[in-house]
Amino acid sequence: MPTSKEAPRDAETISHKLMSRAGLIDKTSSGVYTYLPAGYRVLRNVEAIVRREMDRTGAMELLMPALQPSSLWKESGRLDKMGDEMIRFTDRHDRLMLFGPTHEEVITDIVRKYFSSWKQLPVTLYQIQTKFRDEMRPRFGIVRSREFLMKDAYSFEIDQQGLDETYGKMREAYCRIFTGCGLTFSIQQADSGVIGGKFSEEFVAQGECPELEVGHIFKLGTQYSESMKAFFRDSSGTEKPLIMGCYGIGVSRIVAAAIEGNHDQKGISWPVSIAPFKVLVIPSNTESGQILETAQAIYQSLGSLGISAMLDDRNQSAGMKFADADLCGFPVWVIVGKKAAEGKVEIRIRKGSVSSDVETENAARWVCDFLEANGQS
Amino acid sequence: MPTSKEAPRDAETISHKLMSRAGLIDKTSSGVYTYLPAGYRVLRNVEAIVRREMDRTGAMELLMPALQPSSLWKESGRLDKMGDEMIRFTDRHDRLMLFGPTHEEVITDIVRKYFSSWKQLPVTLYQIQTKFRDEMRPRFGIVRSREFLMKDAYSFEIDQQGLDETYGKMREAYCRIFTGCGLTFSIQQADSGVIGGKFSEEFVAQGECPELEVGHIFKLGTQYSESMKAFFRDSSGTEKPLIMGCYGIGVSRIVAAAIEGNHDQKGISWPVSIAPFKVLVIPSNTESGQILETAQAIYQSLGSLGISAMLDDRNQSAGMKFADADLCGFPVWVIVGKKAAEGKVEIRIRKGSVSSDVETENAARWVCDFLEANGQS
Repeated sequence: MPTSKEAPRDAETISHKLMSRAGLIDKTSSGVYTYLPAGYRVLRNVEAIVRREMDRTGAMELLMPALQPSSLWKESGRLDKMGDEMIRFTDRHDRLMLFGPTHEEVITDIVRKYFSSWKQLPVTLYQIQTKFRDEMRPRFGIVRSREFLMKDAYSFEIDQQGLDETYGKMREAYCRIFTGCGLTFSIQQADSGVIGGKFSEEFVAQGECPELEVGHIFKLGTQYSESMKAFFRDSSGTEKPLIMGCYGIGVSRIVAAAIEGNHDQKGISWPVSIAPFKVLVIPSNTESGQILETAQAIYQSLGSLGISAMLDDRNQSAGMKFADADLCGFPVWVIVGKKAAEGKVEIRIRKGSVSSDVETENAARWVCDFLEANGQS
Repeated sequence: MPTSKEAPRDAETISHKLMSRAGLIDKTSSGVYTYLPAGYRVLRNVEAIVRREMDRTGAMELLMPALQPSSLWKESGRLDKMGDEMIRFTDRHDRLMLFGPTHEEVITDIVRKYFSSWKQLPVTLYQIQTKFRDEMRPRFGIVRSREFLMKDAYSFEIDQQGLDETYGKMREAYCRIFTGCGLTFSIQQADSGVIGGKFSEEFVAQGECPELEVGHIFKLGTQYSESMKAFFRDSSGTEKPLIMGCYGIGVSRIVAAAIEGNHDQKGISWPVSIAPFKVLVIPSNTESGQILETAQAIYQSLGSLGISAMLDDRNQSAGMKFADADLCGFPVWVIVGKKAAEGKVEIRIRKGSVSSDVETENAARWVCDFLEANGQS
């Protein structure tokens, strides 16, 4: 976690500034970022929450390709509607290919091949996958970037009532996901744009970032199934177009939104559920054998309890370590100082800066109980 | 798992045929595949084994972008060396960008920014990430495809001895990974090609597929650190180029290689560690209430023991179900038939077709013990 006092000059939002300063991301090119190890841990924690809640709805996960043939987009009629944001290239056999900004065409192509009877329906399929968009003006770090991680789900039903039910189930799952990631959000009726359909709602996270849609769900209807001939036979044998819904989440955007909603002047204050490490163990003075050994022992105990922890054993001042701990937002700190001689350590909770003195031998157990009570997943 | 008796006409290898017939993949375009739900479960199981063994070596995971600016490749001198396989495009601001077939440039750029002192070294960083290659002739299904999942790791050392040690550690980790995924393999000294360096070895899995390199590890030396000016200060304060190694695994190729090495005339015989589902519960006759209920109860018990299982409650002949079970390769089958009336079920092991009659109430426990003894991870 290479921390820095300076934010990049192009950082306009607090999440962009803090993600850079806390060593979570590194800019490779305009709108193109690497998730450094701590940042990637957050992203994977978010991904796990999204996956858990999607699986709970009964949706099945698959993985579609980013590379798509333009022929599918001609079928749906969207090829000419997409602007310069869609990355296209002509392959070495002179076929027009594209990097899909969304997957309605590919999923409809799959479903029309394998789902032809009402007996196999309804079905909801989802993926967590990297998408590409050649933004005119990439901004806000990972929020409006040219490469990002999305969860996109697609439901296929035999009637409108089925769509309404699945849509409602997804809407609830979305609420659990965003709450689970520590976001405060609102749901707003929205314009369906180039995705289409008659009704859509977007989930907007609280924060100062002017972009921040973190989810968008659509009742698509038969737009794609009619143009791409995705039909099923109902119980009377009649052929009908499948009725579709689609449901997107900006997985990488959640990371930024969580920071927008969980920080203070000193830095990030991670929700326990997605923190890269739950605990930081800070020996106040690494030159004292007793302090360092106590810190190492607590770090080991945390590990054996399955708690992700870091040990800040740098030979630096306690003040500097606290400043980095505040910036990086570890939810729980175990501070090992002079009281180690009396068999005590200080446990500090980042949110609210509440401190307690705890017997050294009980410290790891205390932390474990605290995390379980505060949404460690 | 939409099974089929027919393999696609372009399928030349047994793994391509079986992956298509068992409903693991679907072709979207030449060399471009979707992993259907069961196929994606296998891929994620492989990914988990790769991640576990990488983490054991002390390597740290990050995620680099697929999109890369051509400027970094000019620095390393490789831009003109890459042929038509590298997908390039000019972005809307007229900058030449590319979809990285490999990440030496990006990782060297990161390390030169954050690692400048011998005190921070050695460090090994890895990612599991989708790569793109515009193959002249995509073949063998996911093996020589245009979009695929790779694990690539990069190590940075202060001296040659450090590189030798890390290389050795990675070589051991690779052996554990391939063995863990059920492959039989050999290690061969290889040509380093466009990656560079003086010494490399490749891991070749047994099977009839003529492609099959599943891993390749390189002692790179200072080729990239010199051209890209990735220097560190040693303990005397002298500036020196970092010494690099790089280590690749074709994560999606492992899936095909595992099938090449684990199949018979009837279909796939998954190694327990990467099987999409460990167990299939087969009620031989779904019209018998007792048989169906017994099967459902065993399926529930397996779930509550944390074992991934499927229930084949289709209203089809036992013969057809067995044929699909053979094709799809579930390692363990619980067959509920007439003996359910006597409180017994048959457990069959796919590999070797060994059967045992087990008391119904002990069936789930029996399966659990068998899986634990056979590498369930």
